Amino acid sequence: MAAEFDSDIFVNQTAPGEYDARLRPGWVVGGGVNGGYLLATIGNAIRHAVPAKPDPISISAYYLSASVPGPARVLTRVRREGGSVATVAADLLQGDEQRIAALATFGDLAGLPGDVATTAREPDLPDRERCVPNSMAPEDIRRIAPMMERFDMLFHPEQVGWAVGQPSGNGVISVWFRLKDGREPDPISVLAVVDLLPPVTFDLGRPGWAPTLELTAHVRAVPAPGWLKVRHATRNVAGGMFEEDCEVWDATGRLVAQSRQLARLPRRTTATAG
Amino acid sequence: MAAEFDSDIFVNQTAPGEYDARLRPGWVVGGGVNGGYLLATIGNAIRHAVPAKPDPISISAYYLSASVPGPARVLTRVRREGGSVATVAADLLQGDEQRIAALATFGDLAGLPGDVATTAREPDLPDRERCVPNSMAPEDIRRIAPMMERFDMLFHPEQVGWAVGQPSGNGVISVWFRLKDGREPDPISVLAVVDLLPPVTFDLGRPGWAPTLELTAHVRAVPAPGWLKVRHATRNVAGGMFEEDCEVWDATGRLVAQSRQLARLPRRTTATAG
Repeated sequence: MAAEFDSDIFVNQTAPGEYDARLRPGWVVGGGVNGGYLLATIGNAIRHAVPAKPDPISISAYYLSASVPGPARVLTRVRREGGSVATVAADLLQGDEQRIAALATFGDLAGLPGDVATTAREPDLPDRERCVPNSMAPEDIRRIAPMMERFDMLFHPEQVGWAVGQPSGNGVISVWFRLKDGREPDPISVLAVVDLLPPVTFDLGRPGWAPTLELTAHVRAVPAPGWLKVRHATRNVAGGMFEEDCEVWDATGRLVAQSRQLARLPRRTTATAG
Repeated sequence: MAAEFDSDIFVNQTAPGEYDARLRPGWVVGGGVNGGYLLATIGNAIRHAVPAKPDPISISAYYLSASVPGPARVLTRVRREGGSVATVAADLLQGDEQRIAALATFGDLAGLPGDVATTAREPDLPDRERCVPNSMAPEDIRRIAPMMERFDMLFHPEQVGWAVGQPSGNGVISVWFRLKDGREPDPISVLAVVDLLPPVTFDLGRPGWAPTLELTAHVRAVPAPGWLKVRHATRNVAGGMFEEDCEVWDATGRLVAQSRQLARLPRRTTATAG
């Protein structure tokens, strides 16, 4: 039996390079379908389009309009395939509305050299039993964010004060993460993981939906099975926008994915969604 | 009289959304034409394609093959224009060879809200007269990198040891920067600036050409006139690749652009290009 995540991102080829998808209501959050889930769905279509290059190495998505649950199409066009990588353009559409325009380079992560000289530091998360699980979220939050039922997310206790009206002001949120039903992480699922946390602006006392303009993810290694550590941070809130950097670390302590998105700041008036 | 930079990135419309460019030999570095100069050329074409949205807010470029000096074409397609931004796909070609596939969102940076709550810190550069100018580079380096004649680049004296075989090992290079002939920075020229420094791997004792797979730049404000401070850093060298983060700060101390690229590590054998 397929894990829930795999059936949620399932795509069905209808013509060369063209795929049908069904965006699930279970991935709704606030004003639309979650952008990470959409990125993983696009990634899954590209994986089918270039089967000899199964893994996302880099993917850049420009979010043009908010997606809604229901049918969608992913149209892919291979721009260059040769050597160890393939670069593919992909569009996600619903009816005549374009939702996302993307470019991606896929390859074989397992075939990369084994050198690791990472100087970034793993998020300093307390043991899981000392963290704050997303299952403690109030009922009204869970109703506007049904996607929270799709995963276990355990918040660093010092970075979740925003949930009780006491944001730290540091602009950092770190969590333990795994998909429900124990589905292990892989290079496609981490494309979702980079955009599943609450906007890091929650920790700055700016709750509310923060629409993504652009998100680029680099997947740097195949994640080991087990819990992931995920860290969001921002350092440049200005001009009505902010960048959100995400790191995904696997159970062996390897930095397996890095992403950055540019998003619009939540409006000051939406002070109730946190 | 146009500044050298503006004539170097000049594009000439040949059909709706289609532009001719001429890639100048003055922007060659090592194995090809500099990727930042190419990004600024593409940005200049997009600016012409959506004149009501004159500034790059985000641009993502996938580098498919090395460009050479000579004629090139930039083909743009508006994917969505509405409200305050336009999203455009653009391809840079030479003959039948695709060099770059890009996506970008353009808008009006001067029209953004004035809030600035940046927590990132400006690079701590000594006064310019205490820094090491690129004009001190040996003749053989200047011959393989003629683009170094296009700008003044003054290196932090503690981050330029790689030039004399003593890299710091920290993976950080910071410089003062301005274009030759005093041409002031603008949102298009900063697209070049994010990829003009030597690869940050020089500071890790890994000299040599580091081909970019993908580069995304976010331009966050119109830069003020004057010298820029530019900082490159990497924190995840692994699997034969590294990410290179760039920050561009203007003369008023504002963080005006952030970029990240994914590049291939230089081969160990090319130990002479530093």
